[in-house]
Formats: sequence, structure tokens, C-alpha cells
Amino acid sequence: MAGSSFGTCFRVTTWGESHGKAIGVVVDGCPPGIPLDEALIQTALDKRKPGQTAASTARKEPDIPVILSGVFEGVTTGTPIMIEIQNKDADSRAYSDIARLFRPGHGDITYLAKYGVRDWRGGGRASARETAARVAAGAVAQAVLDSSGVEIKTCTLELGGVKARRIDWNETENNRFQCPDRDVVAEMENRVKEVKKQGDSVGGVVEIRAVNVPAGLGEPVFDKLDARLAGALMGIGAVKAVEIGAGCEAARMTGSENNDQILEGRFETNNSGGILAGISNGDEIIARVHVKPIPSITKEQKTVDENGKQTTLSTKGRHDVSAIPRINPVCKAMVAIVLADLLLRQKAVSCS
Amino acid sequence: MAGSSFGTCFRVTTWGESHGKAIGVVVDGCPPGIPLDEALIQTALDKRKPGQTAASTARKEPDIPVILSGVFEGVTTGTPIMIEIQNKDADSRAYSDIARLFRPGHGDITYLAKYGVRDWRGGGRASARETAARVAAGAVAQAVLDSSGVEIKTCTLELGGVKARRIDWNETENNRFQCPDRDVVAEMENRVKEVKKQGDSVGGVVEIRAVNVPAGLGEPVFDKLDARLAGALMGIGAVKAVEIGAGCEAARMTGSENNDQILEGRFETNNSGGILAGISNGDEIIARVHVKPIPSITKEQKTVDENGKQTTLSTKGRHDVSAIPRINPVCKAMVAIVLADLLLRQKAVSCS
Amino acid sequence: MAGSSFGTCFRVTTWGESHGKAIGVVVDGCPPGIPLDEALIQTALDKRKPGQTAASTARKEPDIPVILSGVFEGVTTGTPIMIEIQNKDADSRAYSDIARLFRPGHGDITYLAKYGVRDWRGGGRASARETAARVAAGAVAQAVLDSSGVEIKTCTLELGGVKARRIDWNETENNRFQCPDRDVVAEMENRVKEVKKQGDSVGGVVEIRAVNVPAGLGEPVFDKLDARLAGALMGIGAVKAVEIGAGCEAARMTGSENNDQILEGRFETNNSGGILAGISNGDEIIARVHVKPIPSITKEQKTVDENGKQTTLSTKGRHDVSAIPRINPVCKAMVAIVLADLLLRQKAVSCS
Amino acid sequence: MAGSSFGTCFRVTTWGESHGKAIGVVVDGCPPGIPLDEALIQTALDKRKPGQTAASTARKEPDIPVILSGVFEGVTTGTPIMIEIQNKDADSRAYSDIARLFRPGHGDITYLAKYGVRDWRGGGRASARETAARVAAGAVAQAVLDSSGVEIKTCTLELGGVKARRIDWNETENNRFQCPDRDVVAEMENRVKEVKKQGDSVGGVVEIRAVNVPAGLGEPVFDKLDARLAGALMGIGAVKAVEIGAGCEAARMTGSENNDQILEGRFETNNSGGILAGISNGDEIIARVHVKPIPSITKEQKTVDENGKQTTLSTKGRHDVSAIPRINPVCKAMVAIVLADLLLRQKAVSCS
Repeated sequence: MAGSSFGTCFRVTTWGESHGKAIGVVVDGCPPGIPLDEALIQTALDKRKPGQTAASTARKEPDIPVILSGVFEGVTTGTPIMIEIQNKDADSRAYSDIARLFRPGHGDITYLAKYGVRDWRGGGRASARETAARVAAGAVAQAVLDSSGVEIKTCTLELGGVKARRIDWNETENNRFQCPDRDVVAEMENRVKEVKKQGDSVGGVVEIRAVNVPAGLGEPVFDKLDARLAGALMGIGAVKAVEIGAGCEAARMTGSENNDQILEGRFETNNSGGILAGISNGDEIIARVHVKPIPSITKEQKTVDENGKQTTLSTKGRHDVSAIPRINPVCKAMVAIVLADLLLRQKAVSCS
Repeated sequence: MAGSSFGTCFRVTTWGESHGKAIGVVVDGCPPGIPLDEALIQTALDKRKPGQTAASTARKEPDIPVILSGVFEGVTTGTPIMIEIQNKDADSRAYSDIARLFRPGHGDITYLAKYGVRDWRGGGRASARETAARVAAGAVAQAVLDSSGVEIKTCTLELGGVKARRIDWNETENNRFQCPDRDVVAEMENRVKEVKKQGDSVGGVVEIRAVNVPAGLGEPVFDKLDARLAGALMGIGAVKAVEIGAGCEAARMTGSENNDQILEGRFETNNSGGILAGISNGDEIIARVHVKPIPSITKEQKTVDENGKQTTLSTKGRHDVSAIPRINPVCKAMVAIVLADLLLRQKAVSCS
Repeated sequence: MAGSSFGTCFRVTTWGESHGKAIGVVVDGCPPGIPLDEALIQTALDKRKPGQTAASTARKEPDIPVILSGVFEGVTTGTPIMIEIQNKDADSRAYSDIARLFRPGHGDITYLAKYGVRDWRGGGRASARETAARVAAGAVAQAVLDSSGVEIKTCTLELGGVKARRIDWNETENNRFQCPDRDVVAEMENRVKEVKKQGDSVGGVVEIRAVNVPAGLGEPVFDKLDARLAGALMGIGAVKAVEIGAGCEAARMTGSENNDQILEGRFETNNSGGILAGISNGDEIIARVHVKPIPSITKEQKTVDENGKQTTLSTKGRHDVSAIPRINPVCKAMVAIVLADLLLRQKAVSCS
Repeated sequence: MAGSSFGTCFRVTTWGESHGKAIGVVVDGCPPGIPLDEALIQTALDKRKPGQTAASTARKEPDIPVILSGVFEGVTTGTPIMIEIQNKDADSRAYSDIARLFRPGHGDITYLAKYGVRDWRGGGRASARETAARVAAGAVAQAVLDSSGVEIKTCTLELGGVKARRIDWNETENNRFQCPDRDVVAEMENRVKEVKKQGDSVGGVVEIRAVNVPAGLGEPVFDKLDARLAGALMGIGAVKAVEIGAGCEAARMTGSENNDQILEGRFETNNSGGILAGISNGDEIIARVHVKPIPSITKEQKTVDENGKQTTLSTKGRHDVSAIPRINPVCKAMVAIVLADLLLRQKAVSCS
């Protein structure tokens, strides 16, 4: 049944397959009067464009967004905003060989189990291409958040086992991996090249921070801010773990270490990641996602065909070696959508 | 705005505060004809009852569920099932001292920021007591899942830094921590006692597995099975990280290591945790949660009062030293609710 | 699947069967800081209490509401408000004879078709008794609306074919039928008595007006104010038609007759019923419902039993002769819930 | 906030303004494996095309639907189906004169009250043009219903005061008004011409019937079939009243007249309109809508401008004289969407 919508007040509905005519998103519930144009969305899309690092696919999509509704004379009108991105460089030929095979690590086998039919071209609906629509919606969400001064940033903490040893937020825009530690960028580059040569792929870790988030966002007890963030981030294709604040480390701390003691006007530490009892506390929101390696590899793997017969497969197609850094703007977009939605939901907490 | 409901086809709505007259849950959308009585719910509630380990609070709630609707002649009727649990042992006196202070690590400060008023008695709505209602709902969800043979189990992988070195599922019911490794139980017990003496608290790690989950559950692209699980689990009070399958480790594997190659009728490994592209693949569903230490500690901590004035606080009240193992049945309940909902949603994927 | 919730920001979930232990409602999303107590809800419930007119059932329920959560120190806290009403006078004996028969005009046959099982005692979930929970929720909604000065009133335009010839709103509280025309009250009374003697029942027409509704409420294009009102009112058991403003008459007017021309600060007429393009225009909201006669009659009727065998039935039990006037506070409650929800949703239209 | 989606399992989200680049709809939750192509949607759209009767606007939109996603190799895949219709003949010049005026009977004044900005071109989002997207979605819904043999038909019972005196369903496709009584077609035609000459407009009554609807559809107590139908139909622009079955007449019947007595395998009458306690009973679903006259008339009317200054207005633009018969396929579409959604929801009532 329907599952392609996200959000309550600010609701996005994505549509489209990897090799269909187009993909896109309807953003419903965007407040009126917000300046919005295609250039703003283009800027966001450009950050997830393929072909910018050695880690990226050879597929070259211009990813030009067209706004078809909801904007009049340069501002949003409060009605649904439809953003469409045409698929220009879809090449399904590489996929026809594997149309009846299940690629390991992919949704081929589960989509067939679920629906009984599947669009095998480029992964169909399960392709990471769908995330372009999320990024477009995230740009709209960010425009909503701008009114509150909320800013969201991401960095690559780890790639293929190479870890950033420090976080310098000024550095993230200076290198192709959005790595916050310039000293390990070369190492990341080498790791990616090496793995590519082996016909393999790598994963990594991305941190997302949101600053200036007003206290009070999140709707107990099931739509808490952390619950919404976790759902939003885990719903991105390659993500296998989500941490908030101290995250996994919190499990090894004592209460006296982990509690953020409260000083006048601020917290002494931020192990909570800016969220207490599922509600923002005014501090920085901190989340991290752990991203699995891209499943499409040229190394030969065992699999079965649609009849269950054993065979092997070596993925061709055009693929990234790592979902990082292209996943970074997707994470940013999802966090923006969560925050915009909860910001608007918080308006409805008061009737005066 | 409204945030106390969870699920689409199988929808639970919890209500109640820690020291109010009662807490409870409405389970709407439960299929008809399922045997259900209070004994079945009692069994589930007994597993999260306080007072069973050294880690537990001294508050003694009998936690007796009463079914007020939705069941007739021993079976569900398809109408809303209301389960109520009276609060018997609520003692608000220990809280009156801190009624105007914000306890570090708690939602006191954020509830006030959000709502402008707050029920300070025992944490009000933010209390872990609310999870009793989830456990009751989880028992109903499990009754739904029984028809598909789905079974959910949990174990304590880590407590206060003490790790299980092996997982023996037969062992988990034999000790008070639901630890799957009998060799470390004593060590866990000692760790908990030691921390209690220090007026401190500890966290840990819980693993949840669901077996016999049919392939095909999960609704792309925003209500994927892993997204729903992450949201459901992160929405439990003390949880700060959620992993699926290989989880954080996946970020350090290569694609050839991480991909679960496909053999006739099964997968060679289960790094995916039974979920591909957000849809169950028929293998075991595996999730882990990282639980922060209980924030209520007797050690003195810095905080401010409602006027922003600096002060210190040493929690009295009656509290657990660790959310584990009482959180285990809550995790189990949330996973059951997610699976029951997605099982029913999958029915609606077909019109024939 | 789940269908017992209504509303998005202000969401009510009713539960309970006619002859179960209790019925009730969870009101989630009520803004915090609103004065609320049981007396206020009692006042609303008293208006739908049976036994006040010749048209009413002999069942005497005290209908005492108990607030179990969501209110602290006399005001709402923003958390779910659970209101419970015990069933005291449920007498299922009269129903045991007809436990395997389908009463014409009732949901017996459709509940069984839908669920495969049914609680036959007093109509189970389909009983009008469920509307007591709606009235309780409506009282909370009205408390929300009070902050905007919104007032909702109802009157009985027609009963058993006897029509009010004029609307005097001061008159409605002066007679037992909430009839706005004192000159026809005796006639209504006679009609009801006559029909009762015949073992039959009657229907009628109720008008609902909401004044001081701010302009701007209603969410195009599917959650328009008129669409929400129509859904809310048609969802009340005996309602078979809903009109807004000029309603059916509008179909016979020309555009120049029907259009409400706009003067400075007001409309010349109110054929629209205060709603243009699904959004409130600041004028009075006007709705009318057409209510069918109570299906439970003592006259013998043809029916079949659960095995499909032809038989006859003469309803015993204790029943109203007309749903009017007891349906009036239910209509008022549903309109209040719709308006409170849309009032809060409108807050989320702006992000500033 | 978001209000452009309708349905739970089968969910449609429309987008687009009258004079924007395009309008369209995302249909999410459509079951997989259903044959669907643009021709099927075109057939449905052709029935609401302007320019077919004297009652129609002069605007000539080809209304060519393009399916951009969710269909592969001729069948639905279970993923969102995006259908786009370009606006070709939008001519905003006639509207620029009245860009700062509020047209009586239109949403100009309420959209501005709600959003603070508005797209004045051709009514923007409030234009009946949006219903083309609903008709497209309705065609998909009908494809879902085909699997159950459900058939939906409509007829014009009344137009400009001219009433059909009998219903001959074979007749409705033989005349331009979808009138079921050939003897009054000429009279309708004359009435429309006369009104047009006067610069005025007319309304009417449309009946919708759905046959072969399985018993059991509808989700008590708020998503009852009649409640959903009423909401869906009242949400169509010009509709001011909705009746189910005997409708308004039921209010004047006694219980013994109104109850549909039950015979073996069928009901003796169908005053209920096929719905008992909000659930389909297997009989024909009957609904009627009362449609107001088109508010755009060339007769001069009083209004104010955006500054509240009194003025007069005579609508130019290109408009229908009556919403009938173009509203008929829109009613049919909304009923199809309601039924498809409830058909799928009913699947989720059972877990076996």
C-alpha cells in the first residue's frame, strides 16, 4: 500500500523509477510566501550529482529540476509544489542481461517477493536515483527552515575504513569527499581507487548537524524528533545504523558521564545530540549514519535467477564505488524535511 | 499536535502519565477472530515489571491490564481494543522537591519548552512507565503475528560495558539480565551493584531478532521495514542508536564482504539483517539498540530551575540503575507492532 | 483496518461497545494550558442523555466521564486526554433472542460480513452509545475553540414530518426537542407519541451553525472545511444527507441568485454557508443533516438469521423513537472537532 | 498544511493550478500487475472535456495524460503512478483585470485569507481544472475495482430546475447532459441556452451508483463508507449537498417505511443506499450530489477589491454555464477512489 509520502504538515511524496521518463516529488503543506525558484533546487541537486569524485558512477544526469506548480511570482502559494526531473541518460541495456537475476545486496529479490512484478531497469524504484527527488524536496524544506535560521551541515567521518581524526567544518567543502580532516583526504582517495581496481566497493560514516534548531520540536511519544530522524535516515538506501548524539558510545557511559548537566542558558556537554525525551533542547542536533558499501560490484558473486536456479553475476551498469559522498546531501535533505515538518507541527501545539 | 499514535493498519495510541490515575493503549485495526485475554497481556507485562533485578526501581506496580473493549467471547472483534493499567504505587512526594528543577538527561526542560506547562510528577508523560502500554499493545501485535508463525526474541548483548562473548538463545530466559552468555552474568551483576553504590547508572546494548517473517514486508520508499524499525526503536526513551543487520560494521566492509550472496532457497550470510531495499527477504530480522544510562542518579549534578537559576540536584525518587533488561520487552513490543502493521499493510498490496 | 480516529492535529480515537465495560475516547493533540475538568464534559454529555423526551430510550446511563490523563492542575498538558465513561445499565438479555438475527436497518449484517464475528449485545460497536465518546471529545474541542470565540449551536428543523416554520435561536433551549419554533413543539410531541404507539419511529432534520469562525480554515483540496464537515456528519449513525449553506436548494438557483455578493466587510447573503472553495470566509458556518428514523421498531419485520433462513423480528431492547434530539449534541461535537482540528492545522500554514 | 492527498491504502495526491505549466496526480498504493495505459486514462478524461455541450466553457484543453512512473511493460508495478496533464490553452489575460478583485462565489477571498498570497490566474488551485487530475486517478481506481467487477455510473437527475422523470440508465450515454430521461433533454438544452443568454448560470443534481460492491467495505467509526463518500463528494468544488440512499427523504419516513427488510439473499428495498452502519451491504451504492450554479457569470455583481473597496464585477474568462455534466465523471472518479481505497483497506482486516 501507499508508502511514498513522508511528513504530516510538510509532506513530501516522491515518485519515479531509475530508468523511467522522469522522477520527481510533490511537496504539500509548504507555507506560502517563501521565495523559491529552480536555481535554489538546482544548487542542492548539484551536490549529489554523479561524476564528481573517483567514487562516482559514470552515468551523467544533468538533473535539471522544473517546478510545475505551487510557485507564483517567485514565492510559494501554499499549494502543492511539484518538482520534476527528467531522466536523460538512462541506459537500460546493461541491465537486460540481468533482468531475470537477483543482484546480491539489492532489492531485486524483495521487490519481486512483494509485488510479483518488477521494473528491473537500473533498480527501478529501489534505485538511489529516487533520492534526487528527496534532495529537491529538502531544498524546499531548507527554505522553510531559513525563516528560523536553522542550518544543516554534513561531513564524511569515515570512508572505506579511513577515519577523519578531527572535524573542521570549514574543510568539508574543500574536498570531494566532504571530509572534515584534510589530512586524510588523500588516503580516502587512494582507498577508493584501490577498491575500484578490485571491482569492489566501500562504505563509511556521515555526520549530520543542525544548528539553531528551536527548542520544543518533536511530538511525543511516537513522533519524537529522534524517532523521526532515525526513520528518515534509515530509510535512505544504504544506511544500516543511525546514531543520535553520543550514540553507540552512550551505551558504555555511566549516567554521570552521559548526562548533559545544565548551566544557565546552555548545556555543559551535548551527549544527547540536542534531543531530550524526543524533543529538541535548543542545542545542536547531531546524528550519524553508517553506510554500507554499494552492492553493485564487478567481482563475481553467487546468486539465483527468478526460477531459483543457481548462477553467478558480475554487475556491469554504471555505479558508484561508494554511496559517500553523494549520500551526504540526501541525509541533509531528510533531516531538513523532518525539521521543517516538526517546526510546522509545533505551530499547531498552540491555539492562540 | 497529535503524536501518540503509531501504525497505519494496526494502529496503537498510548495515553497516560507516570503518576496519573492510569495508563493505557487503544489498539485499532486488530484483525477479528484472534484469541485474546488479559492473561496473555499480563504475561508480556510481567517481563517488564520492576523489581526483578538489582538494576530495577523499588516502585512496585502490579501492572494488571484490563481489556475494556474490542474482545467478545474470547476473541477480537475487529473494533478498537482498549487496555487499561491502573497506577497503584505512584508516589509523587519525592518529586515535589524538584518540581521546579530540570533533571539533567530528562525531558523536564524540553517538555516545558514545548508545552509551556508540565506534569512534573515522576516524569509525567515522558516517564518510561508509558512503555507498559506499548508492551500491552505488543502482546496484541504478537497475537496477530502468531498466525504467520513470526517469533520475536531479545537478548542483552552488553550491560555497563560487560559484553556477552557468545549468543546462546536458550540462555536468555535463565538469567535476570536476559544475557545470552551465562559466563558474564555474574560480571554484569557486579557491575550493576558497583554502579548503584556509586549513585550512578549504566547503559547497554540489546539485540532483537524476528524469525519466520515472510518476505515482502515493508512499504517503499518511506515506510520501509528498516525505517519503521529504526523509528520505532529510537522512539523508546533511552535508545541512542539503532543498527540493522551488520549495522555500524557494514560501514567498514567491502561490497564483496557485505553482500549476502544468494543460494538456492537461502542467503549465504545475513549482513542485511533480513532486509533488502527496505523489504523483508525471508531471513531473520536483526536489530540492535544502544541504550544510554538511566539519567536519574543520586550523584549531585548541576542544573537550573524554571527561572534559569543555577543550582544542583541529586535525584531521589525510585529508579532503575539501568534501562536493561526492562527495555527488552519494550523493544520486542515495538518490533511486534511494526511487523503486525506491515503484515497487514502487505495484505492491501493485492486487490485479488 | 484502523478507522476509529478522526483529525490530524487534534485527533480523537473512540473505543468501546454498547454493552462492554466502558466506552471512551483519547483526545490527542489538544493544545496545552486549556482549563478542563470533568464538570465541563459532564455538561455536554448531559445534553445527549437518554430519558429527557418521549422520544428517548428507557436505558438510564448516568454517563459520568472520568479524565484519566492529559490534565494536570486543572489545565491540559498537551499530552493525550483519556476520557472514560462506564457502562452501568447495559442489559443484554433483550438481545440474546436476536443474537443470531440481523435487525433490518442495523449494522448486524454488515458487521458480520466485514469481520466474520460480531458483538451482538446492544449493537456492539455500531450502537449510538459510541457517540457519547464523541460528545466528550467535542467538549474538549469546544474548549479549544473558546480561545477563538467560536460558538456552535444546533436546532431541530423537522421531526417526524413536523417542520419548524421559523428559527428562533433563543427558543431551542426552552423545549425538549431543541425546536426553534415554539408553535410546533406540541405537534412534534404528538407525532412522537403517536408513532411510539404504532411501534414505529421517525426521523428529522437538524441544523448546525458555527459563529465567529475565523476566515481561512480548511485545507484544499481534499480536507476542505465542507468536505470534512460532510464526512464528520455523515459518519454519525442515522445521518443520510448533509447540506452546506443553501444545500439542495442551491441546485435550483441561478448563479446570480446563489452567489453571495461581497460588500465592504461582509457578504450580502450566506448561501455558501460560510465556506468558499472549501475555506471558511468568516461568515456563519451552516450545515444541515437529514436523519433517518431509528431502525429499532417493535413492528414486525422480515429478516433472516445468520444462516440465511427467513424469519421475522420485532425489536425489543430499549430504544429511542427518534435519534432527534439526542443526535443534536453529537452533531455539535463533530462540528467542534472538525473546527478545532482545522484551526490548529491553519497554525501550521505559516512558519513565522 | 498538507491537504492534497486522499485515501489510506490507495492514496492520490493531486497538484497543479489552472494556468500553471501542468496539473497531475500521484497515485500511490495501486496494487501491482494491473493493466494500465494512457488510452484508458484518456477515455476517462474525454468525458469531462470541455466543449461538448452548450453548458461548457470555450477553453479547449486537449487533456492528454502522460504516465511518468509506476507502469512497466503495460502493468502497474505497485510503485507510485504519476500522471501529468499539460495546460495548453491557459489564457490569463482575461483574469488580469480582476487580479485584485474577489469574484463572488469563488475562493479568491478565502485563498487570500488563508495563504496571504494567491495565484489569481483562472482560479489557481481552486479551479475546477484540478478535477482533471482526479478523473485520471479515478481511472486508475476503476482499474483496481475491475478485479471485483465493481461498476460505477452517473446520471443527471436535474439541471437548472428541469428534472428527469424516470431513470433509464441506457439513455445516459445518448445525450450530452447524461440525462436518464430522453423526454427532458430538449428542455434542459433550452434552459441552459436561456440562462446563458441572460449571462447567468444553473446548477443541478447528479446521481451516482456503484454496482457489485462487495459487502464489508467501510471502516467504522470514522472512515465509514458513507462518511468517506460524503467527504469525497462534498470536496468537489460546486457540491453543496450529498445524499446517501433515500437521503433527505429518509427524514420524513417512519422506521417501518425506511428499513430495508431482509429477504433470503437480498434486501426488499434499498433506502439505505447499500450501506448499513457505514459498511457496504452488497446492494447498489446510491449517492446524489446537489450542485450549485457556476459562480462565474457575466451579469454584474457587487464585490470588493483586495483593499476592501466596493466595486462591481462582470466575469469574463471562459466558463461553463453549469458544472453539469462535466462534474459527472468527477463524481464517478471520487467514488471509484473511495471504493478502491476501502476495498484495499478491507484486505488488511484479515491477517490470514
